[in-house]
Amino acid sequence: MNDMTVRPKSEYHEKMKSDMEKFLRGPDWTPAQRVALSCRILDADGHESALAGQITLRGEKPGTYWGLSFGLGLNEAKASNILLFDNDLNVLEGEGMANPANRFHMWIYQERPQVNSIVHTHPPHASALSMIAEPLTLSHMDTCVLYENCAYLPEWPGVPIGDEEGRIISEGLGDKEAILLAHHGVLTACKTMEAATILGFYMERAAKLQMMARAVGSIKAVKREHALEARGYRGSPKYISATFNFLAREVIRNSPEVLN
Amino acid sequence: MNDMTVRPKSEYHEKMKSDMEKFLRGPDWTPAQRVALSCRILDADGHESALAGQITLRGEKPGTYWGLSFGLGLNEAKASNILLFDNDLNVLEGEGMANPANRFHMWIYQERPQVNSIVHTHPPHASALSMIAEPLTLSHMDTCVLYENCAYLPEWPGVPIGDEEGRIISEGLGDKEAILLAHHGVLTACKTMEAATILGFYMERAAKLQMMARAVGSIKAVKREHALEARGYRGSPKYISATFNFLAREVIRNSPEVLN
Amino acid sequence: MNDMTVRPKSEYHEKMKSDMEKFLRGPDWTPAQRVALSCRILDADGHESALAGQITLRGEKPGTYWGLSFGLGLNEAKASNILLFDNDLNVLEGEGMANPANRFHMWIYQERPQVNSIVHTHPPHASALSMIAEPLTLSHMDTCVLYENCAYLPEWPGVPIGDEEGRIISEGLGDKEAILLAHHGVLTACKTMEAATILGFYMERAAKLQMMARAVGSIKAVKREHALEARGYRGSPKYISATFNFLAREVIRNSPEVLN
Amino acid sequence: MNDMTVRPKSEYHEKMKSDMEKFLRGPDWTPAQRVALSCRILDADGHESALAGQITLRGEKPGTYWGLSFGLGLNEAKASNILLFDNDLNVLEGEGMANPANRFHMWIYQERPQVNSIVHTHPPHASALSMIAEPLTLSHMDTCVLYENCAYLPEWPGVPIGDEEGRIISEGLGDKEAILLAHHGVLTACKTMEAATILGFYMERAAKLQMMARAVGSIKAVKREHALEARGYRGSPKYISATFNFLAREVIRNSPEVLN
Repeated sequence: MNDMTVRPKSEYHEKMKSDMEKFLRGPDWTPAQRVALSCRILDADGHESALAGQITLRGEKPGTYWGLSFGLGLNEAKASNILLFDNDLNVLEGEGMANPANRFHMWIYQERPQVNSIVHTHPPHASALSMIAEPLTLSHMDTCVLYENCAYLPEWPGVPIGDEEGRIISEGLGDKEAILLAHHGVLTACKTMEAATILGFYMERAAKLQMMARAVGSIKAVKREHALEARGYRGSPKYISATFNFLAREVIRNSPEVLN
Repeated sequence: MNDMTVRPKSEYHEKMKSDMEKFLRGPDWTPAQRVALSCRILDADGHESALAGQITLRGEKPGTYWGLSFGLGLNEAKASNILLFDNDLNVLEGEGMANPANRFHMWIYQERPQVNSIVHTHPPHASALSMIAEPLTLSHMDTCVLYENCAYLPEWPGVPIGDEEGRIISEGLGDKEAILLAHHGVLTACKTMEAATILGFYMERAAKLQMMARAVGSIKAVKREHALEARGYRGSPKYISATFNFLAREVIRNSPEVLN
Repeated sequence: MNDMTVRPKSEYHEKMKSDMEKFLRGPDWTPAQRVALSCRILDADGHESALAGQITLRGEKPGTYWGLSFGLGLNEAKASNILLFDNDLNVLEGEGMANPANRFHMWIYQERPQVNSIVHTHPPHASALSMIAEPLTLSHMDTCVLYENCAYLPEWPGVPIGDEEGRIISEGLGDKEAILLAHHGVLTACKTMEAATILGFYMERAAKLQMMARAVGSIKAVKREHALEARGYRGSPKYISATFNFLAREVIRNSPEVLN
Repeated sequence: MNDMTVRPKSEYHEKMKSDMEKFLRGPDWTPAQRVALSCRILDADGHESALAGQITLRGEKPGTYWGLSFGLGLNEAKASNILLFDNDLNVLEGEGMANPANRFHMWIYQERPQVNSIVHTHPPHASALSMIAEPLTLSHMDTCVLYENCAYLPEWPGVPIGDEEGRIISEGLGDKEAILLAHHGVLTACKTMEAATILGFYMERAAKLQMMARAVGSIKAVKREHALEARGYRGSPKYISATFNFLAREVIRNSPEVLN
């Protein structure tokens, strides 16, 4: 063997960061394309729950937001049916009506200026978990991206199309990037569309692992230091966007119309 | 933010109703097309159980009914193989024989003049649930459309091709729109084909959530007032048909022959 | 309503039989085509377990059998790779080698002259069930076709390529048409290829329902008289072949080469 | 019946070996093609976990290794994006960066000169199992290929991109061919790419059976002598490559670009 020098782990973390910066580049999608890709990525991973769920992204102009035209499913999203609307859900660009439940997103955007994107869906395993009064348990390397980063709202405030629901969910979220909503689903609120999508993706993946594991026994906790290391590694903007780009390429191969 | 006026929730419900009326319109499918679409929608969501299950719709002329030609699976339905038959299962239009189990539908139609459509299938999660003497538990926003709207028949009266089974199932249903049939499957009886389909769709979805949740622990109940609000919202004719239309578009994209 | 005459159920059973005779007809497939269709039907329903499993059918000449060329998966079966071989597994028609595990089928054919077809696969739910020392429990109308018709071999005799395994499995089967083999899989032995296929299909379906139900609680038994009625109805040669034909049509739509 | 001579089982084992040698031949794929096929085979069986997982194969020149370009998913692998790199992850052939986690493979290659290929993935059932402090239980004929051949690492050493993780995993593996890594996933280390792939394939299959079975009850052990017989039969190089070739043909039918 030529070279099996033992190095401190920090060197590997550094090298990886610079290599990723150099080698992993994604296309420059428009905001509407990114929302459409997010819808399709989550649909492809089983987040469909008929017309439930909304994915939004702040527009360039303050107080404007991108989101899918209401009445369409996640698997029908394409750039041309992503609407721009204001925080009272008046449509500024595009044909159709905004999703009435986008209203509660506004309360999060108001409370959290650094949040630029919100993903809310009702995927099956998280939905089942949401019925048994258990928070999301993160105990696998892949899902540690949510470690100490996922809140829990144990009471369901009813159909989320009003203002009170927005206030309650926003308060439940606090300063975290994700929240499991009892009797309801998952929500992520992040700096980028990519992060909100990938954290939403991992909420359902984590719920699936949890439901399988808990049907057999109890879950063993991971060590906090390892979990935080994994969160830093997997949750870095570059790793997140590499993951988003991978999932987006699969969507585009299967449904190239998503970009139109 | 331009406008974060806090309003009473009733205003949002009202606005949504009028917006949906304005923006969400579906095609005018013929009765046979609607039956075929219903078969394919439920098949696409996993309701297939070989040749088991029947979906019927009242014809324009009293005492006539539309339903799939017997011997075909749900995924073979198209407008041209949907038969019109009378309540003694004599075929009036189309080639083939009516499903012998359509007979028990007649007892429900007789008892419930407002019911125009019946969906009966044997989907897997509801079938598994039907074996353990537990009623359907509704504890998620998406499935609240069935809240206090789903009966339970705890005893199986045998193969449902006779008259006695029709009487028993009809009696078990009472004035509700849905019933879980022990050792057997699901049934919905509604004013429209769209509603019977979507309620059948959510019966299996609810059973799936319940089986996953119950394998881990016990299910926490939702507050009655929220559940009834969700039922009103999601069960409104407009929301139901928007959901049906979404699912129908997916079927048509994958199997355009369904309309022929 | 024109006609809601109440009739004894036997009349409905009679009418159905004669209608099915009149309306439900299937193609005349060759023996090799029927074996290939059986392989693909079971594959499409999830019976794949890499190269495990064998499906055989008696040839016209006594002591000859049809079966898939070894090394191919169920989803590669087509009429032209179905071999004819003798009971010592010498190939009489076609290219390739017979599956070594076909040997144990011979002991069943020898013991049961009315058996013309054997299906043996390792589908996932039956395989999981086969690991926990529980027999197959039939408690749903659809699976009653196996009621009091499915034996259980609680001890695994090892890799079934020898003679002793054939003797043990044949003895365990007795005069039934199906058997669950511990640590191994399912086996059906029937008068026709169609029946062996459909009973194999329902063994895995029944195991799936059982595993889901048992993860939640205990299974409630069905009444014996209803179960036997359902077995007679669903297990009639005409209903069995209608089910086989439905599943075969789906295979042919997706993989027309199966018939070549 | 012409010939039902009873023979000792060893004769059947001998005949099968010579028949397989004669009849079962696979194509001569290049090393890069074999790595790409392995990625796609495992992806097709559900091993995808976004960008997690790495599959490597020793190059002809000592101290060189083949593996997928980092940032691509398993389902994007093709011969042309399989890189050759050295044990310090410097790329020798191809465009892109090596997976940083390939580093820990090097410690296994160093310790085990006969190991030529390593498969490491995070498939869902093994991942769920890895969270509940239970080792992999082999109790089905199909998975006995791993019997007394699968180690267990009960403590997760953190993100495996450094040297310490390599040492720990290598030590945990010992002289076995497979190891279940707590909170992490599966790993196999074998003489050939084919064996590493098929053992990885069966680790997830075994975990799936185990999770289903354990949700219902406890697993009954198989007899050691039968398990070892099955391991010898199913784990022979010829049977392993026949299984790999079957799965590879399916990949090539669905994604012929994998070979480019």
